[in-house]
Amino acid sequence: MKINKERLQEHFEIISQYGKIREAGLCRPALSSIEKEAFSVVSGWMKEAGMTVRIDNSGNLIGRLEGGNSEGPVLMIGSHLDSQPYGGRFDGTSGVLAGVEVAMTLTEQRITPQVPIEVISFCDEESWRFKKGLFGSRGIVGKLEPEELDRTDKDGITRRQALIDFGCDPNKLEESVYPPGAIGAFLELHIEQGPLLDVQNKPVGIVTGIAGPLWLTVKLKGFAGHAGSVPMNLRQDALLGASKMIGEINQIVRQDPSAPSVVTVGSLKVFPDSPNIIPEEVEFTIDLRDIDLNRRNRYEQEIRIMIEEVSTQYKLTAEIQEDTNLEPVDCAEWIQEIIFEESKIMEMDSPKMMSGPFHDSVIMSNACDIGMIFVRCKDGISHNPAEFASYDDLAVGTELLYKTALRVSSKLGNLQLSQSGLTKGGSVL
Amino acid sequence: MKINKERLQEHFEIISQYGKIREAGLCRPALSSIEKEAFSVVSGWMKEAGMTVRIDNSGNLIGRLEGGNSEGPVLMIGSHLDSQPYGGRFDGTSGVLAGVEVAMTLTEQRITPQVPIEVISFCDEESWRFKKGLFGSRGIVGKLEPEELDRTDKDGITRRQALIDFGCDPNKLEESVYPPGAIGAFLELHIEQGPLLDVQNKPVGIVTGIAGPLWLTVKLKGFAGHAGSVPMNLRQDALLGASKMIGEINQIVRQDPSAPSVVTVGSLKVFPDSPNIIPEEVEFTIDLRDIDLNRRNRYEQEIRIMIEEVSTQYKLTAEIQEDTNLEPVDCAEWIQEIIFEESKIMEMDSPKMMSGPFHDSVIMSNACDIGMIFVRCKDGISHNPAEFASYDDLAVGTELLYKTALRVSSKLGNLQLSQSGLTKGGSVL
Repeated sequence: MKINKERLQEHFEIISQYGKIREAGLCRPALSSIEKEAFSVVSGWMKEAGMTVRIDNSGNLIGRLEGGNSEGPVLMIGSHLDSQPYGGRFDGTSGVLAGVEVAMTLTEQRITPQVPIEVISFCDEESWRFKKGLFGSRGIVGKLEPEELDRTDKDGITRRQALIDFGCDPNKLEESVYPPGAIGAFLELHIEQGPLLDVQNKPVGIVTGIAGPLWLTVKLKGFAGHAGSVPMNLRQDALLGASKMIGEINQIVRQDPSAPSVVTVGSLKVFPDSPNIIPEEVEFTIDLRDIDLNRRNRYEQEIRIMIEEVSTQYKLTAEIQEDTNLEPVDCAEWIQEIIFEESKIMEMDSPKMMSGPFHDSVIMSNACDIGMIFVRCKDGISHNPAEFASYDDLAVGTELLYKTALRVSSKLGNLQLSQSGLTKGGSVL
Repeated sequence: MKINKERLQEHFEIISQYGKIREAGLCRPALSSIEKEAFSVVSGWMKEAGMTVRIDNSGNLIGRLEGGNSEGPVLMIGSHLDSQPYGGRFDGTSGVLAGVEVAMTLTEQRITPQVPIEVISFCDEESWRFKKGLFGSRGIVGKLEPEELDRTDKDGITRRQALIDFGCDPNKLEESVYPPGAIGAFLELHIEQGPLLDVQNKPVGIVTGIAGPLWLTVKLKGFAGHAGSVPMNLRQDALLGASKMIGEINQIVRQDPSAPSVVTVGSLKVFPDSPNIIPEEVEFTIDLRDIDLNRRNRYEQEIRIMIEEVSTQYKLTAEIQEDTNLEPVDCAEWIQEIIFEESKIMEMDSPKMMSGPFHDSVIMSNACDIGMIFVRCKDGISHNPAEFASYDDLAVGTELLYKTALRVSSKLGNLQLSQSGLTKGGSVL
């Protein structure tokens, strides 16, 4: 094995302390002081690997290892260091530490990649703090909208203020955008967050594509009143209506038990939230995902119609806001093929599989070809402090990432050489 | 009219500024700095009325007007100045300001009541801050439990700390307790918080009894997981289970449409409350009220059984905590009769009625006979910033309270005289 398994494990053990909750869980919110501390630690490792390091104005941590051709398109590798509020230590962090380990190994092996390699920790992949995420990857590919700087977290802090507190300049977001063609490919290692590899007893998997998530926020308005004196038939109880809707949403999305469609109402707030006041307002989120966009669109329509009907029945008004709408994307065939071949050389028969969870790769597919390696996680548990991946599996995944990165950077270098050649040849004609 | 309507209105307008929200709403939490300011203002008016004023260790504001017999049992009059978080300016405040107006009028009229009159603003009637209320009235009658000082509000502040911050000594709660017989009667004026008087076009009503509230907190535990990867049939979604329960709770309590039973799930919290994590824990409250204790007990049992069944169905564990359990109480016949007669003299035909909402009177019935006067409120709206009672109606109610207080204090004085006589007579035998 070329990569250093002990060092990788040590890095995990150190970084897991930044935001540790319960025995082995993690709460490392995007753009928090705890994430800043984690950035500082990882930044030190990047420098050890011989990289130049910066934090861009979208809140991404980026380490750059120069390649044979410093003008060439970059091979970007990474994931995110922010976590769910009640999450695990492997989601996201694995991809960043694996990227750092790839760079350290290259430098140790005195290998200069044909194109520059950048290792990145994307800002706010997790999305919960401002209810719209993948912020850093969208920053890289120029897909941020000005008004989203005004989104607030639970404490009323705007994204703009959080960026400023983090040391970024939200007025200069465009400086984070890479010009077209500047990124040659993007590779991401991630824990599977599902049970497939565990069931099949395989350490790693090759991702073929990523399901598209639709995020909606539903705001219901009824009328507050005294819990002791308003007769049941005269009430406009927003929580009673929301409860009915949550049940119906589940019915709609489970109508075809053979389909992998999933839906989650994960966040719900009641106003005024007092035991003896009839709820006047309720706000809840819907997270709907499918690999089949047509089916997902059909379910969305059924949910919207149902919300109208239930609102009328419970004398409520409903407002539906779309927070995120991403289409399913495919991983590049040629990168899948490289991962598959290198996996074979490592004497593994790694399964090809879809990803239910979305990743920064979904956004990066707007700018370049993408490839993803999944690492087995115990019982498929993720977004939970009980999330677990073994250091053996993580080392195998990182070794595979290292070998894939070598071949992808060569391919990008050769591609550029042949394109330069073509241009020269063209000019001769 | 003996009371001063303009002064009463002026007092309302001043006190409504302390905790004002929106155009005419109120948020004046128990034991908050804003309630302390309101106490200070009302304390000034009590002193103007010739009262001596104190705040006891249970957080009650008490003004005392000496009577002909300063040893006699006290006639207590009052209600509460704390409000719902999203409440109105009349709930509770009306009873305190009416009490102050009674004392001011007595002093102006140079009437010394036969027994001392104490006007009280009870601490934390509203119950939402620490999920258990009627604190001050329970303090007066010796019904506080030591462990409830450890209850916390949403910011993690304990009741103990809130009392200390308010200037009270929570280690000396027993000093607030009145000895048996020390309180002769308790009178409370309150807005109806229901539509009956408005529908019948009557300014005031005479309360015959108060429905008993049962407050439960239900804690559900499932298992968190990634919203994108855990198949629907493998989930343990605590919010999905809670939604089912909320619907069922309503079905159970509405089974007899002719009964006045009401149930409310007013507060609900989700953990970890992230759009893309399957909810692991949900905590919600149940407020169940009835004038028929047997029916209420039956509904409680059905709800408990249903919660067990739904928990099993959704693979959740459920824990049910009882926060408050008060039996319905009756208002004293002889006080009802006095109110009825005085109301007739004022040329009103005031209806007798039950109270759905509970009041400090429920607790005070443990110590003495109680009487309540309801004042009409528009459309029956309460626990809402739209809550409204006219100054005309409030003045009528306060005049009726004044006349009732005069007769009740005479009766208490005479009762004591005759009891002293009996004792003397007894000693002669």
